[in-house]
Amino acid sequence: MSIHPHFDQRDREAVYNIIGARRDMRHFLIGATVAPETLTRILQAGHMAPSVGLMQPWRFIRVLDPALRRRLGEEAERVRLQTAEAMGSRKEFFLGLKVEGINECAELLVVVMAPDDGTVVGRLTMPNAMAISSCACAIQNMWLAARAENLGLGWVSFFDPQVVARLLECPDGAEPLAILCLGPVGEFPAAPLMSLAGWRQEKPLDAILYTDRYGREPDRPMLC
Amino acid sequence: MSIHPHFDQRDREAVYNIIGARRDMRHFLIGATVAPETLTRILQAGHMAPSVGLMQPWRFIRVLDPALRRRLGEEAERVRLQTAEAMGSRKEFFLGLKVEGINECAELLVVVMAPDDGTVVGRLTMPNAMAISSCACAIQNMWLAARAENLGLGWVSFFDPQVVARLLECPDGAEPLAILCLGPVGEFPAAPLMSLAGWRQEKPLDAILYTDRYGREPDRPMLC
Repeated sequence: MSIHPHFDQRDREAVYNIIGARRDMRHFLIGATVAPETLTRILQAGHMAPSVGLMQPWRFIRVLDPALRRRLGEEAERVRLQTAEAMGSRKEFFLGLKVEGINECAELLVVVMAPDDGTVVGRLTMPNAMAISSCACAIQNMWLAARAENLGLGWVSFFDPQVVARLLECPDGAEPLAILCLGPVGEFPAAPLMSLAGWRQEKPLDAILYTDRYGREPDRPMLC
Repeated sequence: MSIHPHFDQRDREAVYNIIGARRDMRHFLIGATVAPETLTRILQAGHMAPSVGLMQPWRFIRVLDPALRRRLGEEAERVRLQTAEAMGSRKEFFLGLKVEGINECAELLVVVMAPDDGTVVGRLTMPNAMAISSCACAIQNMWLAARAENLGLGWVSFFDPQVVARLLECPDGAEPLAILCLGPVGEFPAAPLMSLAGWRQEKPLDAILYTDRYGREPDRPMLC
């Protein structure tokens, strides 16, 4: 049986290595740039994502206006400080973590979920969750593409979507989901920053793997 | 400057080719299997996804019980027929499309979003959308991993999450997001099935690409 295109061991190693080396980046090289053809490839990768009912709900807004970038940075800072207030005893610890690189990254993109186009196929029961999921799949494609290009990408969610919708003059029903910081970085950390900083540890895979019922551990080890 | 690990042209080609060849699959080879070590690699790829505040909200439930698989298939069929009723003049056209392969695929996995663990970092303003997005990133990783393994994967969203939550005995607040059909397939279509079937055409990338404001086309061509 032939499957076209057919991927081999070398292809699999590439994709698994890229998946494993992808990080949520907040530190970028100041003054660096992304070549137009590289940016094109990353955007194309996003646009090749799956979407429920082929609705393709993602819209990519490239931020070129320095004043707009500054305003987005101020909004992220506002929500970061608001988040700190909700941290209780971990407030100072949290404030010591860098959470975004909006002012430093080479390229700034905002991913907005378009107003609902009425697609019913595949979203009769979970219309909003499925549209959001499609946008997230597009962003994950871009994340992996960026890493393959040896560029960092960070998904900033420190913003009030209504504030960002106003800044970008979004139509009613459109919902900004991500401010993406993209660009050259000095290095990629070996593990998630939240984990390296001691903020939180990752769960092992077998802790989130069940059989037939939520919470039911496999009778025999499933992983090998 | 050295970025570790550093990816080269061959790695990029692999990941872009895999992103481009990934399809939402509904047709599977009956009686085929997935090797345990292959399934492990795909699950590991999912678990390496980014998550807001490192909350890792995804839970993977492997369906081994044939009766449970049958019930999930019946639920998908129920929602498919309900969807058909909402299709108006396209009802018969829709009913002619195959939308899932629950009964045929080698492996059936359900991805459930865990009950909210109270994570605040990165989700003060969009708690639900960010948890869903993290689960979707995990699924997209699995989708690409499966394609790299020359296996098909289909994301079935034809179900009422409350019905599936009951079948899987999920705790309050847990939300099933995807029934994933995984396994060997006969062939991968060259384009999305919805597009090949003439149900809907894809938008070109430049139709969803703006600068600085929603809907504002770039002054100069952005893509090259």
